[in-house]
Amino acid sequence: MGSNPLILNMLPIIEAKLQQIVSRLDEPRTHIFHEMLTYHLGWSGNGSGPDATGKRIRPLLVLLTCAASGGIWQDALSAAACLELIHNFSLAHDDIQDGSELRRGRLTLWKRWGMAQAINVGDALFILAQLTLLELKNNFPPQITMEAGTLINNACLELSTGQFLDLAYEDRTDMTIDDYLPMVSGKTAALLSACTQIGAILGGADSLKQENYRSFGHFLGLAFQMQDDYLGIWGEMELTGKSIESDLVAGKKTLPVLFGLSKGGKFARRWAERPISYAEVGDLSEQLAKEGAKLYTQHAADQMTELALQSLHRAAPHGEAGLVLYDMVNILNNRHT
Amino acid sequence: MGSNPLILNMLPIIEAKLQQIVSRLDEPRTHIFHEMLTYHLGWSGNGSGPDATGKRIRPLLVLLTCAASGGIWQDALSAAACLELIHNFSLAHDDIQDGSELRRGRLTLWKRWGMAQAINVGDALFILAQLTLLELKNNFPPQITMEAGTLINNACLELSTGQFLDLAYEDRTDMTIDDYLPMVSGKTAALLSACTQIGAILGGADSLKQENYRSFGHFLGLAFQMQDDYLGIWGEMELTGKSIESDLVAGKKTLPVLFGLSKGGKFARRWAERPISYAEVGDLSEQLAKEGAKLYTQHAADQMTELALQSLHRAAPHGEAGLVLYDMVNILNNRHT
Repeated sequence: MGSNPLILNMLPIIEAKLQQIVSRLDEPRTHIFHEMLTYHLGWSGNGSGPDATGKRIRPLLVLLTCAASGGIWQDALSAAACLELIHNFSLAHDDIQDGSELRRGRLTLWKRWGMAQAINVGDALFILAQLTLLELKNNFPPQITMEAGTLINNACLELSTGQFLDLAYEDRTDMTIDDYLPMVSGKTAALLSACTQIGAILGGADSLKQENYRSFGHFLGLAFQMQDDYLGIWGEMELTGKSIESDLVAGKKTLPVLFGLSKGGKFARRWAERPISYAEVGDLSEQLAKEGAKLYTQHAADQMTELALQSLHRAAPHGEAGLVLYDMVNILNNRHT
Repeated sequence: MGSNPLILNMLPIIEAKLQQIVSRLDEPRTHIFHEMLTYHLGWSGNGSGPDATGKRIRPLLVLLTCAASGGIWQDALSAAACLELIHNFSLAHDDIQDGSELRRGRLTLWKRWGMAQAINVGDALFILAQLTLLELKNNFPPQITMEAGTLINNACLELSTGQFLDLAYEDRTDMTIDDYLPMVSGKTAALLSACTQIGAILGGADSLKQENYRSFGHFLGLAFQMQDDYLGIWGEMELTGKSIESDLVAGKKTLPVLFGLSKGGKFARRWAERPISYAEVGDLSEQLAKEGAKLYTQHAADQMTELALQSLHRAAPHGEAGLVLYDMVNILNNRHT
């Protein structure tokens, strides 16, 4: 996907738009504030560059679904930038909440600038996202702009609800696989489905197609999260940019862990007596695989991918952008290829 | 002001609106999330009630300026609720950033529910604020709704910039009184001036009057902050609900402190060798008063109050609401009466 001409065309335009938005804070008194944002977005500081920015999946989804529904993707740039800023707002706060010290191989914002400033940078990113969204009024009727605002902020509320559940689950011992979907629907799927639905709306799709695109984003998000859960236990440092098997040490109740707990076997008994040290993580992840969690998670992720593809098929995306959307499903679910 | 019939009419309507907005989170899985918000807004938990909710100054300002510019204040209720939610979002994050354990005599959100959940509750309040603002479209043309959105989010960006400066100043030793205004303009005045400007816009004021109302809110905010700085050193526990003289112990660079530092006397020398203990706070605040900071701060607050009154006068507010706005200036600046 990275070498597709359409993507290669879109990426620098997304980047330039984001930089223009953030440059608003580049005033003498707030120069360091600006630096905090450019650091978090991957443009400045140690290790800055394409590896640090992330893949800009969300803005690409907005632009591609807009184009694939027959719209002019350049007109949707504000919505695309808005959603990338919202994603980065949530990462900034997530890293504090989880106590994560590294993201994409670099110090997290709070680790670099302190917790208080990192909370504020997250807030600023969210505020800039709202202001950027309102720029849609330059290209679309006011009703569309306000509809986009409602849709995106509803998705943010789902994100926040998912975050509440995630944090609340940390203290619970009685969780089951049924608790998984409500949490990840909010934490991952809500924003991705907002991206694809907004793109479809701005591209002029009818309401049935909007719904198909929304559902495409939703299942894509779930597939993505399940794959992430898989990599968090059986992935490797080089591939994920996170320290290996940290999900077991961190005690995260991801899908494979919930599966393992439901089995009530060796893994569940060891989990009940956390914390788990780095030293035993190799054996424990093998045990979890032996109990069936590895296959189960991979299978669940494949199912979600299949549902995403079916929704995309029903949306009948046009042209080059449509082909790239199909590609994207594979990219997201085979991040090591 | 508290016994004015118009205010007595508005307050329960504001409260009901806020409760309706927040009730959206009252679902089985998110019952505790909802409780966190109702606790923070003063409706539930230990010490809930009118003392815990705060005075709802911001929504009152929106409704009063709307009415005083000739509008129907009930139509502006969404904007009023939006600004109160934004205020509470910023309090939730502020308390974490400052490490404050008490607010209005009760445990702060992060102290009660943990830092991670408190960050998320702040985020949810801000998201709900955005969704509520969009409800203006039911009573106003789309252009007005979007103008309000831009104006409010610009004020939020000023708030965030002010917060950056406040946090950055904690580590600086070379600050002067010139650094004070940029910080408090963002931290306090931005939101109050957004309240009065929005109220004027929704009330149908012409652009000159809008500007007068905006400037009224701006100076009111500065007066309020200077008075707060005064009380933070020479106020008393019962009046502010905060522990006495905590600003000196916390090392906050408020207006009297910056004045004291500029004198380079006894106070400045002791300040340079912080931390300051509770035991010496009595003597040190007397020393600061002796060096002129108490009079200076009171005088500066009075000047801002005077400027607020002049702006209000130029806005020529109508009727009962106008009279209450004049009253409000006095209430804010004589919070112990």
